[in-house]
Amino acid sequence: MEGIVLEERPAPIPGPGEVRIRMRAHTLNHIDIWVLSGSPAYSVPCPHIMGSEGVGTVESLGVGVDPLLGLSPGQTVAISPGQGCLVCELCRSGSESLCSYYRVLGGHLPGIFSEIVCLPASRLIPVPDGVDALSASAVTLAGATAHQALVARGLAKPGEKWLVVGASGGVGHLACLLGKALKIEMVGTYGPERKREPLSRGLGIPLVSHEAADWTDRLRESSGQSFDGVLDTVGGATIPRVLPLLRKGGRAVVVGETTGAQTQFPTRELFGRQLSLHGVYLAHRMDIVAMLGWLSRGAFLPIVSSVGSLETVDPLREAYQRMIDRDFVGKIGFVWHPQGGEKE
Amino acid sequence: MEGIVLEERPAPIPGPGEVRIRMRAHTLNHIDIWVLSGSPAYSVPCPHIMGSEGVGTVESLGVGVDPLLGLSPGQTVAISPGQGCLVCELCRSGSESLCSYYRVLGGHLPGIFSEIVCLPASRLIPVPDGVDALSASAVTLAGATAHQALVARGLAKPGEKWLVVGASGGVGHLACLLGKALKIEMVGTYGPERKREPLSRGLGIPLVSHEAADWTDRLRESSGQSFDGVLDTVGGATIPRVLPLLRKGGRAVVVGETTGAQTQFPTRELFGRQLSLHGVYLAHRMDIVAMLGWLSRGAFLPIVSSVGSLETVDPLREAYQRMIDRDFVGKIGFVWHPQGGEKE
Amino acid sequence: MEGIVLEERPAPIPGPGEVRIRMRAHTLNHIDIWVLSGSPAYSVPCPHIMGSEGVGTVESLGVGVDPLLGLSPGQTVAISPGQGCLVCELCRSGSESLCSYYRVLGGHLPGIFSEIVCLPASRLIPVPDGVDALSASAVTLAGATAHQALVARGLAKPGEKWLVVGASGGVGHLACLLGKALKIEMVGTYGPERKREPLSRGLGIPLVSHEAADWTDRLRESSGQSFDGVLDTVGGATIPRVLPLLRKGGRAVVVGETTGAQTQFPTRELFGRQLSLHGVYLAHRMDIVAMLGWLSRGAFLPIVSSVGSLETVDPLREAYQRMIDRDFVGKIGFVWHPQGGEKE
Amino acid sequence: MEGIVLEERPAPIPGPGEVRIRMRAHTLNHIDIWVLSGSPAYSVPCPHIMGSEGVGTVESLGVGVDPLLGLSPGQTVAISPGQGCLVCELCRSGSESLCSYYRVLGGHLPGIFSEIVCLPASRLIPVPDGVDALSASAVTLAGATAHQALVARGLAKPGEKWLVVGASGGVGHLACLLGKALKIEMVGTYGPERKREPLSRGLGIPLVSHEAADWTDRLRESSGQSFDGVLDTVGGATIPRVLPLLRKGGRAVVVGETTGAQTQFPTRELFGRQLSLHGVYLAHRMDIVAMLGWLSRGAFLPIVSSVGSLETVDPLREAYQRMIDRDFVGKIGFVWHPQGGEKE
Ligand SMILES: [Zn+2]
Ligand SMILES: [Zn+2]
Ligand SMILES: [Zn+2]
Ligand SMILES: [Zn+2]
Repeated sequence: MEGIVLEERPAPIPGPGEVRIRMRAHTLNHIDIWVLSGSPAYSVPCPHIMGSEGVGTVESLGVGVDPLLGLSPGQTVAISPGQGCLVCELCRSGSESLCSYYRVLGGHLPGIFSEIVCLPASRLIPVPDGVDALSASAVTLAGATAHQALVARGLAKPGEKWLVVGASGGVGHLACLLGKALKIEMVGTYGPERKREPLSRGLGIPLVSHEAADWTDRLRESSGQSFDGVLDTVGGATIPRVLPLLRKGGRAVVVGETTGAQTQFPTRELFGRQLSLHGVYLAHRMDIVAMLGWLSRGAFLPIVSSVGSLETVDPLREAYQRMIDRDFVGKIGFVWHPQGGEKE
Repeated sequence: MEGIVLEERPAPIPGPGEVRIRMRAHTLNHIDIWVLSGSPAYSVPCPHIMGSEGVGTVESLGVGVDPLLGLSPGQTVAISPGQGCLVCELCRSGSESLCSYYRVLGGHLPGIFSEIVCLPASRLIPVPDGVDALSASAVTLAGATAHQALVARGLAKPGEKWLVVGASGGVGHLACLLGKALKIEMVGTYGPERKREPLSRGLGIPLVSHEAADWTDRLRESSGQSFDGVLDTVGGATIPRVLPLLRKGGRAVVVGETTGAQTQFPTRELFGRQLSLHGVYLAHRMDIVAMLGWLSRGAFLPIVSSVGSLETVDPLREAYQRMIDRDFVGKIGFVWHPQGGEKE
Repeated sequence: MEGIVLEERPAPIPGPGEVRIRMRAHTLNHIDIWVLSGSPAYSVPCPHIMGSEGVGTVESLGVGVDPLLGLSPGQTVAISPGQGCLVCELCRSGSESLCSYYRVLGGHLPGIFSEIVCLPASRLIPVPDGVDALSASAVTLAGATAHQALVARGLAKPGEKWLVVGASGGVGHLACLLGKALKIEMVGTYGPERKREPLSRGLGIPLVSHEAADWTDRLRESSGQSFDGVLDTVGGATIPRVLPLLRKGGRAVVVGETTGAQTQFPTRELFGRQLSLHGVYLAHRMDIVAMLGWLSRGAFLPIVSSVGSLETVDPLREAYQRMIDRDFVGKIGFVWHPQGGEKE
Repeated sequence: MEGIVLEERPAPIPGPGEVRIRMRAHTLNHIDIWVLSGSPAYSVPCPHIMGSEGVGTVESLGVGVDPLLGLSPGQTVAISPGQGCLVCELCRSGSESLCSYYRVLGGHLPGIFSEIVCLPASRLIPVPDGVDALSASAVTLAGATAHQALVARGLAKPGEKWLVVGASGGVGHLACLLGKALKIEMVGTYGPERKREPLSRGLGIPLVSHEAADWTDRLRESSGQSFDGVLDTVGGATIPRVLPLLRKGGRAVVVGETTGAQTQFPTRELFGRQLSLHGVYLAHRMDIVAMLGWLSRGAFLPIVSSVGSLETVDPLREAYQRMIDRDFVGKIGFVWHPQGGEKE
């Protein structure tokens, strides 16, 4: 953790096709932790600028930025963290995270936790008026993944009933909020009891703790096999426990592997009851656009605790420690020298 | 096996809404083996009439058979082995095998290996002219499952490349034939070397043996991660071996559990590469209708070895022994007192 | 109108597979008007029992009612007005209104405006607790059509913007309510100014009058080509006027022909802007089940003005006159001898 | 026509992100005719380089061509004629022809009928080995439109029966070939009797002439309302005639307006029989990739009559005259100084 430092650097100059942005608000993502812990999935050279999620204000455009993009100084933009080659069939058909060249800012590439960043114009998405910067930042990766998992693949439908395992996390709590807004009956799980109250206040849905050894048995007793779907954000060990909660023909979406590098379940559970399992990894630019749309229409409000303005690196280190200790609910964010309208 | 006997019984009389059918040709299904071996999935009282797959000729209609059905004496009909309650939302929206009341003839209900059967009219499907009875019988369950797995769920598309693990079996070989007809590039696996020649002749697709310990490594070396999908008819132990053959975003369809009651694989394989697993259990009336349509248009010919007319029970016993020993390719069938046009 | 009479008849006895129902509440449908006016689409012999929409209480079951259906005396059930042959592929795949044998109670068959009716058990749908009978009745045909048009065909998506032409009618107002509940931005049109206030109160969405000659021009000026879809309940003359309100790739759904037996528009409008037109005719049992689900979850409340208990035929005649004069908003309903819990 | 000239010009130099291509083979498209006739849909300044369809060999890369694209000198590439802004949601989700900035080479932008062209790398698509240049050229616009109409939108399915009105044209004949390859039963129409023989030889499907006044009546008599879909390449006057050939729930796809600037039909035909009309305008890069894939797998062979090498402009003028006179079948193409392997 002491490796995280705040440094003064010369402000970058936008290259051809790039845009210079003064960043305003950021949210932390588990990718930051993976990078810090040296996960092979995100191996980056040191020193490395951290950070995948953020929102800022356009300062200037480099040469050759396509005027079609409608970007201009003063505009608030969200950063799309992941991007593929933009030209292959996958990238052009809404499946860019399947592209072999898909790279994530802060994960495979230098990140964006800087006061000034220069990025290709194609990574910028205008933020609709009236959406606060921390909320917008929260949907650029965690929220977009929730949208990809529930909506973009057509896996969840209004009127259905879904369980989110790990509803207190970044993806989990945004899936609950999105699902609820779309008239899906959502039930969430959380760990330690102290999370219940803030989570319940922020989500307004039924919650059960997954700390009791028999939590799935209890859910099975109370709800039977009534869930149309499960979104498992802590995949691995939980999968064999949640499959029996699904109705015949139900779907399980897996977006993490916190509880187990191996997944095991009875084969008959899968084919005898015609279940399906779907792995989802990050999200697409379209998911961010859709989530920003929901925010601008007031459909829901992400749970973001801001550690305030980053004058020293200490609040950031503490925030990461809380993430490692799983001692937080929703998202953790910070801002740079907040201006008037900034929520701190 | 000695429990299988051929008995003389009084011919049944069709009740209200039922149709009396003189059966002509049958094909054996693995369900028969499960019933013989006392599998808990198909527990039936003894004595039990065996058999799920068959085709016959309408002899007479009971009272109250809806004239809308257009059934009349002399018509050739295939029997739909599985049927739900017909009235629930699942049954009415093409998902009848998800219905709680879904029951399979010969599996949960008395079977149809009889010269004369009486069945509810709703189980009968007219066989188009020019389709031989054994071929038609072969698609009522095994073939319909192949159709459900590849086509009805929209999992496979023309131009894609699919691997069928267990291509010599009932479902497997029909999946290969159907996929090939739909311009999907099919590759199949088989076990002992003696099956290669008859299978290759019947399917006309590239085949590899899955008896060598490193067969998936070899496929991976030659084809990379190039498969859009895998249909695994022997699910369980094979799943972790075939997932690495899939491209990012690929699909695995599981229709059996021969090789393992448990399925295990690295969680990261699922979500990091955005794969999906789909369990398919039997099929719908619509799948049978579609497959009969393909047969009538000459799209392909099921591999059926007929043991001929069933004068004694011995050929049937021997056929089941071959199925237990996995010493056959495609489907095994038999006929009753073949008439002029019957293929024996 | 004087042909409509209230008559005493012997109570019917349920035949095999039928259920006897004491009807409680009914809603009127435009089909009633078409029958009264002798429309060739609904030619019925006289005397004819009118009525397509209604809800009642099961009194007794005839012989042979499948116990799987779970029907029992005392249960509240909605009547599914339209039904096909139940056995063809269309009926079994959720497309029953495409079946050649699709017949509508009160339209092609005797109707249900009777204190006691006997109907095939397959036409009955349990009404969830807490849903009032008039609301339930309103979604059995008008509401189900709205569901078919917007949801069942996948034509409208949350986050989109839709225009309902004729938002004051049965289908129109329920489409607005359903769309709004599903987070679709809905805009509706109405005719005479006196309808604005009750409609606005019942729907809570932006409304424009289509009585001004230039209403589409005005909408085009204020909204541009921003609509993702149009549901036109008065199709014909309105189609060429609403197509220019659609964005490229937009969809128009047509569920009526009040304003013109012929539809005409510039060919280039269709293919140059990649629009699509979709005709929807009535709905499916699944649509009714879905709508009853939304009612039971409190998603919205149909606008139904009840003329009260039908002691004489006069209130019914007056109600039809109001429908012919287009002098009503939402649905018009009536009840039989209301019991305790009945809303009158 | 005399305005078409062949001129010597300095060879262009590839700008940043551009690729220099030596063109080898071209095919003519109706867009050329519209440009020649001054259609307002394609207004271009004069002088204008014509041509939308073509295939060539990469000669050199400008600076900044993304190495991810894998382009290198010597490679055979097809030109994608239409392209949007590449960055908006529509362009990134496979709907680029809905993008407001969608522009077609030769239609809205300078064309490609030149020995040397320089184009943005994003417009180039590698041609698989073994596909001849004229065939590849034929699927870049006409063929891609056929793919978009039948396959990309999911409108046609294997086992269905479709009618192509105008089967002798560029889009029409490729739709017939593609549909046939995908096991759709195709029926085509043509005009003058002299086209029957070459068309029948090239397509191998049943054909009827639409020159007889009662051709739709005759089709109706022989086939009833049995078509699942109609692809109308000459839209306008034909629409009301072909709708009655569709089964209930059938689809009509309109890709042209040759026979009428206005489309008119009975409103009841649309909603009473639940038909849908779909306008399709040009196609997407993905459609070209898919069609090149089918060509490389030998699924079919476009009908292309080459006028040979373009030493003078006369053969081109004559070819356009034949297109204006509708005196051709399939596509007309030409080559530049054919090398060894070129089909002339
Ligand atoms: Zn890519
Ligand atoms: Zn059922
Ligand atoms: Zn039917
Ligand atoms: Zn665009």
